[in-house]
Amino acid sequence: MGNTFGHLFRITTFGESHGGGVGVVIDGCPPLLEISEAEIQVELDRRRPGQSKITTPRQETDTCEIISGVFEGKTTGTPLAILVRNKDARSQDYDEMSVKYRPSHADATYDAKYGIRNWKGGGRSSARETIGRVAAGAIAKKILQQAAGVEIIGYVKRIKDLEGIVDPDTVTLEQVESNIVRCPDQEAAQKMIDLIDQIRREKDSLGGVVECVARYVPKGLGEPVFDKLEADLAKAVMSLPASKGFEIGSGFAGTVLTGSEHNDEFYTDEAGNIRTVTNRSGGIQGGISNGENIIIRVAFKPTATIGKEQQTVTNSGEETTLAAKGRHDPCVLPRAVPMVEAMVALVICDHLLRHQGQCGGLQQADKFKS
Amino acid sequence: MGNTFGHLFRITTFGESHGGGVGVVIDGCPPLLEISEAEIQVELDRRRPGQSKITTPRQETDTCEIISGVFEGKTTGTPLAILVRNKDARSQDYDEMSVKYRPSHADATYDAKYGIRNWKGGGRSSARETIGRVAAGAIAKKILQQAAGVEIIGYVKRIKDLEGIVDPDTVTLEQVESNIVRCPDQEAAQKMIDLIDQIRREKDSLGGVVECVARYVPKGLGEPVFDKLEADLAKAVMSLPASKGFEIGSGFAGTVLTGSEHNDEFYTDEAGNIRTVTNRSGGIQGGISNGENIIIRVAFKPTATIGKEQQTVTNSGEETTLAAKGRHDPCVLPRAVPMVEAMVALVICDHLLRHQGQCGGLQQADKFKS
Amino acid sequence: MGNTFGHLFRITTFGESHGGGVGVVIDGCPPLLEISEAEIQVELDRRRPGQSKITTPRQETDTCEIISGVFEGKTTGTPLAILVRNKDARSQDYDEMSVKYRPSHADATYDAKYGIRNWKGGGRSSARETIGRVAAGAIAKKILQQAAGVEIIGYVKRIKDLEGIVDPDTVTLEQVESNIVRCPDQEAAQKMIDLIDQIRREKDSLGGVVECVARYVPKGLGEPVFDKLEADLAKAVMSLPASKGFEIGSGFAGTVLTGSEHNDEFYTDEAGNIRTVTNRSGGIQGGISNGENIIIRVAFKPTATIGKEQQTVTNSGEETTLAAKGRHDPCVLPRAVPMVEAMVALVICDHLLRHQGQCGGLQQADKFKS
Amino acid sequence: MGNTFGHLFRITTFGESHGGGVGVVIDGCPPLLEISEAEIQVELDRRRPGQSKITTPRQETDTCEIISGVFEGKTTGTPLAILVRNKDARSQDYDEMSVKYRPSHADATYDAKYGIRNWKGGGRSSARETIGRVAAGAIAKKILQQAAGVEIIGYVKRIKDLEGIVDPDTVTLEQVESNIVRCPDQEAAQKMIDLIDQIRREKDSLGGVVECVARYVPKGLGEPVFDKLEADLAKAVMSLPASKGFEIGSGFAGTVLTGSEHNDEFYTDEAGNIRTVTNRSGGIQGGISNGENIIIRVAFKPTATIGKEQQTVTNSGEETTLAAKGRHDPCVLPRAVPMVEAMVALVICDHLLRHQGQCGGLQQADKFKS
Repeated sequence: MGNTFGHLFRITTFGESHGGGVGVVIDGCPPLLEISEAEIQVELDRRRPGQSKITTPRQETDTCEIISGVFEGKTTGTPLAILVRNKDARSQDYDEMSVKYRPSHADATYDAKYGIRNWKGGGRSSARETIGRVAAGAIAKKILQQAAGVEIIGYVKRIKDLEGIVDPDTVTLEQVESNIVRCPDQEAAQKMIDLIDQIRREKDSLGGVVECVARYVPKGLGEPVFDKLEADLAKAVMSLPASKGFEIGSGFAGTVLTGSEHNDEFYTDEAGNIRTVTNRSGGIQGGISNGENIIIRVAFKPTATIGKEQQTVTNSGEETTLAAKGRHDPCVLPRAVPMVEAMVALVICDHLLRHQGQCGGLQQADKFKS
Repeated sequence: MGNTFGHLFRITTFGESHGGGVGVVIDGCPPLLEISEAEIQVELDRRRPGQSKITTPRQETDTCEIISGVFEGKTTGTPLAILVRNKDARSQDYDEMSVKYRPSHADATYDAKYGIRNWKGGGRSSARETIGRVAAGAIAKKILQQAAGVEIIGYVKRIKDLEGIVDPDTVTLEQVESNIVRCPDQEAAQKMIDLIDQIRREKDSLGGVVECVARYVPKGLGEPVFDKLEADLAKAVMSLPASKGFEIGSGFAGTVLTGSEHNDEFYTDEAGNIRTVTNRSGGIQGGISNGENIIIRVAFKPTATIGKEQQTVTNSGEETTLAAKGRHDPCVLPRAVPMVEAMVALVICDHLLRHQGQCGGLQQADKFKS
Repeated sequence: MGNTFGHLFRITTFGESHGGGVGVVIDGCPPLLEISEAEIQVELDRRRPGQSKITTPRQETDTCEIISGVFEGKTTGTPLAILVRNKDARSQDYDEMSVKYRPSHADATYDAKYGIRNWKGGGRSSARETIGRVAAGAIAKKILQQAAGVEIIGYVKRIKDLEGIVDPDTVTLEQVESNIVRCPDQEAAQKMIDLIDQIRREKDSLGGVVECVARYVPKGLGEPVFDKLEADLAKAVMSLPASKGFEIGSGFAGTVLTGSEHNDEFYTDEAGNIRTVTNRSGGIQGGISNGENIIIRVAFKPTATIGKEQQTVTNSGEETTLAAKGRHDPCVLPRAVPMVEAMVALVICDHLLRHQGQCGGLQQADKFKS
Repeated sequence: MGNTFGHLFRITTFGESHGGGVGVVIDGCPPLLEISEAEIQVELDRRRPGQSKITTPRQETDTCEIISGVFEGKTTGTPLAILVRNKDARSQDYDEMSVKYRPSHADATYDAKYGIRNWKGGGRSSARETIGRVAAGAIAKKILQQAAGVEIIGYVKRIKDLEGIVDPDTVTLEQVESNIVRCPDQEAAQKMIDLIDQIRREKDSLGGVVECVARYVPKGLGEPVFDKLEADLAKAVMSLPASKGFEIGSGFAGTVLTGSEHNDEFYTDEAGNIRTVTNRSGGIQGGISNGENIIIRVAFKPTATIGKEQQTVTNSGEETTLAAKGRHDPCVLPRAVPMVEAMVALVICDHLLRHQGQCGGLQQADKFKS
């Protein structure tokens, strides 16, 4: 009962790792947007398994079908349903996990909550669920790009303690996609790739930090006091599998500064726009976008499912050990990049429509009268 | 249009710093709960200004009135409205801010969004808005305590780079309340108090980290995939004024561990309960509570409003300087503790009811039949 | 947990008949709307008891206070809280009803649901709750009037079997307010007044039908498939106390026509607008407004609380009789007129903002870009 | 942006008449419910076209596939997605309607709202959309039956002015299904069938009234003040295509009675339950179920799409005539019966879970503690 996200641009995802498929219904998409399966597929391909040697070797094409909501290449204002069929899977890899709980995975809590669990491939708790999010995010990105020229770019900022040097104000998608770990700092990227490759051979796993920037976001988006833009961004990315922390702007590091060191002083640029000299606020003040770049970071823990043997229990409480079979990501970060971007796009797109709904109100009088 | 929080236990706050008052409407409170204004006042007193030398010297009693929803000392299942009147305020302190934007405050973005702003005392963006949250949190806490013995305890973990040593599994409310900075590590607390006192005299401000633990939370709370318990907790605290970051369990620090170092191995305790040896998950796995202590941390930036002179602009874009008048907190952390506790309580209470709604379903057949 | 109505223009009401007061929080009101307590009071005065000899003789002024959300006479985009204090009431009239259930009233079901009930004056189930709706409706009306020139006019169409002849296309507020029963057909109105006066003396009560028209509603409002405009209108008015039925356009009478008799044929008017020759659709087709007048009717049952003796039971199940004391309306219809108007205004206003949010989307690109 | 219905048992439908398919996502279904495609198909077969000589002769099997949310025959608490593929359709029948607006249909308003419309087969405004509702309703019915023994039975009460005599307290599904018009009064049913058959040959259409009873509904369901049970029922059925009116209990007819004639007096039955002698309230008082049978009626207008020639305009405003091609229902009533039942089931099921969520609260303390 928590599978819907957003208010005006509202998505509902469905599906388990094994079974009929996964997908999303998007309600509230503005009409007359040109959209194709091919455009969505581009984002799904950035998310799919088997894309490189440092992701899971599972090969899934994740081909999407738009079931509804598009007519002659354009959205109609009615719900878009997008479906990705599951392929025949090696569910025998999961036989052992049908009774043994993976440490730090969702197996035990799903059983505790629902009294039943689709244990094949992780079922609903599989990262495969994010296919629906990424598909919807592709559409949100396009709306934002067309409506306001918004650019949303995520990248791997850190793997374990290997941190890349990246300028969020200038980084490009091409730089991000130029290597398989999606860190635009090429030197750091190579070290990250080597480290992931090594940990994979050790049947262990790694975590890290994804950073994401949204540029050219209009001023005025965000709905205080609960639906502040950073609050919705935090919820969005903290709902991704394996996320453990969220920061905006200066984040935790900003807490060691004094107010006079931390505050972003104002100035007026040549075009007459009110701007800030620095951007420790991360593009949001008082819950509302201020026109500067929105910059967030998300902490992802090391993948829970590992080949190393660990202490655990069965679903009846017997103590045992588990060395997980199956083909798991040694590090989710490279594939998490398009997921974070998608969630950021969904939040900003929803807030664009919400802001337009409330605050576009009386100004539109003429339109309604004519 | 973002002033409501929660699904079944749902609060709506209203009110500005200056004006008629602030308050909250709580919809969905279970009936037959004994509650009094005095109980709510206890929490409001922990939040109110003027409570110590390291908070703002503004003296406000913040006396609450329950307008509706309680009959003969018990909740009736109908909405509780709670109102706290504003007192006559020194709004002349804000005259300058009616035209000059405070750096890193919400002044400029409210103007950009709405085209109008109640500039007296910060209006809606004032931390005074959190009175409604804290009042509602007092009720959520009581429900949780009565329904499941849940304990929610927040405290100051760090001020600037002064960090306290606190054991979340054993810390008590008494320890937290034993000093004015609300850090249960007495030695660290004294240093924090001294530092805040010093920065106050320098007309500057400080930030830090609040940690909060929820103990005895039942297993099974949280609604994947979007309304995961940690996602709703993140949104809840990131909607508080001045928050810049959120962590659950191992948080950002957990990202430098490998999976085998980070995973919480399972065991079965004497009572036959499935438990985890460690708690890097912070009490939540796969978005659902696992019965271990829920532990979160929230980063609060240094207070934006400071007496030191800063560069800024007026609402018409003219560059100027501002040295804020008025009586502002040199550090919001001590007063943020009850706010964080309240938000945590609201989230868990809402999820308790939601879980009961969906998953209590068929099991309650007998009750409905009889 | 059902005290909030609307999506973007969203109201939450609170309060019981006896106790601290009743009121409403309005979230999502567009900013910069000029609004005063006096304007709201006009609508409250149409709703208040004691306004004429055919309503309850209880004298309540129902004076409203705007607690928040308005600054220097204009809305700020933040929540408006509006409070009406209860006056000292003759709650002793209700002593008997604390144990005896009024037939066809909410007494018994509130006890069954919540296990507790504020029995003074009907508590939450009192029509006094509608004060918050009428106050919010006054604001919705003003938004609609300013944004699109919308006029919303309700009137008593029928009392028992006395039916007025009214043309919804031309009826004016002045005609409605020209008599105390609010039926613009003066001849029928007098008969209605006489009948109500007579039934009052018999300690009995009457029902009837309120009709309401909304003129100049823009085309395009309504959100298929569930939030069709007529569906939300139906919910809105069926949530009013004592309502038992809803019709739009031809309603139940339309079911005896054939399709060729019932369909509204299209034509193009001189201004080039697509119009319908007839309006059996009642201004809505496929859930979306078509620019014709929206016309609905609401059935109100005779007031449940009557002075005549009736068979009933106590809350412990003992059979007894009750002849209700207190000062009750012999017929709710005259006071229901502003309630119906308010609900219609709230629905249309919410849908205006929702439509603007989704379908104003890409078209506003220029605004966001500049 | 109005394609989701319900709070805890929440459905989202998608799909157009022509295109990839139609379906529904159900979020919040309690876990461990045994459910199969075959059970859902039973209800879909009652709704499908081509089932008899008085419905459209279009032959569609409407075979459903459960994509997700069921594991080894039981629900898992995760979203159920149910898909029905569209078959190749005679979309050439609609070529003319791509430019000519059908009178009293949604063609013109969809164009006005969205600026685009999938005109094949009516697109989203086609009654084919209700497949998702009926599928979800099948599950809601089963939950209600298992949780509380609830029975929901709809039937045709009237076609044009031919009214059947039916006792809602005793009518059975078998009686309803014993003839193709779904009126349990066999004599009236034959007349209705003959009349529909005749009007079909005249290329015209008929309307009428569906009545629906819900028996054994537990006391206490419904959430005043806006989500009263009758208000949600009204919205639910008024969102069905072609509905023009709603009544509960005595409905419009009740408005000609006096209070003393209309009120349902209380008594205590042998089992000690508080009951009402009559049931003019229709099973709901004050918005909350009282344990008596819930009885509603829905007015359906005559089908808008008819073969008779009518005046209309094109989408560019030119006046023209239209005699609709295609295979349309001469009367929607027989197929509307399962739709009404589905909507009633969805509302009651959602309210069962909501009531359990809020009011099951503190009572469940023991469960959570242990």
